[in-house]
Amino acid sequence: MTERSARFRALHHGDQPLLLPNAWDHASAAALAARGHPAVGTTSLGVAATAGRPDGTGSTAGETLALARRLATLAVLLSVDIEAGFSDDPAAVADYAAELAGLGVVGINLEDGRPDGTLADPGCVAAKVAAVKSAVPHLFVNARTDTWWLGVDDPLPQTLARARAYRAAGADGIFVPGTVDLATLRILTERIDAPVNALYQPGGPGLAELSAAGVARVSTGSLLFRAALGAALDAADAVRLGRPTAPAVLPSYAEVQALVPTAGA
Amino acid sequence: MTERSARFRALHHGDQPLLLPNAWDHASAAALAARGHPAVGTTSLGVAATAGRPDGTGSTAGETLALARRLATLAVLLSVDIEAGFSDDPAAVADYAAELAGLGVVGINLEDGRPDGTLADPGCVAAKVAAVKSAVPHLFVNARTDTWWLGVDDPLPQTLARARAYRAAGADGIFVPGTVDLATLRILTERIDAPVNALYQPGGPGLAELSAAGVARVSTGSLLFRAALGAALDAADAVRLGRPTAPAVLPSYAEVQALVPTAGA
Repeated sequence: MTERSARFRALHHGDQPLLLPNAWDHASAAALAARGHPAVGTTSLGVAATAGRPDGTGSTAGETLALARRLATLAVLLSVDIEAGFSDDPAAVADYAAELAGLGVVGINLEDGRPDGTLADPGCVAAKVAAVKSAVPHLFVNARTDTWWLGVDDPLPQTLARARAYRAAGADGIFVPGTVDLATLRILTERIDAPVNALYQPGGPGLAELSAAGVARVSTGSLLFRAALGAALDAADAVRLGRPTAPAVLPSYAEVQALVPTAGA
Repeated sequence: MTERSARFRALHHGDQPLLLPNAWDHASAAALAARGHPAVGTTSLGVAATAGRPDGTGSTAGETLALARRLATLAVLLSVDIEAGFSDDPAAVADYAAELAGLGVVGINLEDGRPDGTLADPGCVAAKVAAVKSAVPHLFVNARTDTWWLGVDDPLPQTLARARAYRAAGADGIFVPGTVDLATLRILTERIDAPVNALYQPGGPGLAELSAAGVARVSTGSLLFRAALGAALDAADAVRLGRPTAPAVLPSYAEVQALVPTAGA
């Protein structure tokens, strides 16, 4: 267990849930770190879209690794979304995770959704989790089940069954995106013996309510990336249509330059 | 002259100024194209910051080329900001520009500001312009002078002198960021015998006023990138502080996925 890994793990057991904002490039990660977030995740949608690739299809292993290499230089704890591990071979997933850990990455998200919109066999996912934990025990493996997102019938029991399987394989946390129903989250957090990660939804419950339901970690998923892209489009529309451009937050040129190592470094 | 180059050139001579929004990755460029912009530029600040490098220091030649290669697949006219050409050798700048043109890029921005905050000798800049135009005559070379940005004394005469030198070397357009004073712009557009590019400033004159001053092209520079980054920070703050997250424009997951070639393509 490295010191950084221990710190990341402890953030799942504080008074408040760990709010993990999701970045997609150096600037977004550095800016979130500078804003005081102790840890950042990555968003696979953002990483894929910035590179011109589709999300969730296992096609961004190279981009994800390159991004991790870049972000590993930041003074922030980093958890990386590796979709379904970019492979169906547990050993290959473990190798990939070990490479990330070698860069200083403290956690990964590993999902059971498949590009065809079905859920992977839980045994196959558990085998990936076990392989990763065997290779890099200190890496925080946040196992994500896409039961709600993929619209399975009666998702609660299947979610609990999958959570049990992934926990038995060594998963450190369980990520259940797609529901912010507080009664459901309470059942999940009571029955899953590990930190439960919820996905923040605009208009849904806030951190305090999610905390009261037992949620240990709240991610923003692709929200920040989509808000960023939307703000760029909105600003371009404003210029085109003669509306005022007045973003609530607008970093200056100098503030953006300050996010990167200085020239000559 | 390729058909795409001719179309881009013609956009500088329409009834309205060409509004050239500046992108920094595949998603921003594809989204701006999908929003109806016939042409997009790149922002060197955005390209540099996303890669974790400083802007304006000649350190992003590789990233800029990689981005151009990626964006060349989009159905939008593309002009690329190459800072000062990433070299002081006119032949090297011409080679770089030719490589971009080979990808389908229709224009470049080439600036006379230097990393140390001084202006390059106008003869050296003119030599780069001439080398590029000799190598790729159809490439629209937008020569940028940083007289206002770098705060030279009495910028108007120096701007006009530099514009003359760059025009004589073959520049197709002159970019004068840093002033949106309409009287000044009117003098510039009357005295420069080429399309003049102004940089939009929030709170400054809009397209119609810039058009009335004779401006032929309006860029957004780093504004969209900074608005995007600001929106991400603002959304993260909102979640952290329990404020509502309500971006004016928020592309959905499906809308973002639609910006990239589909899986298997």
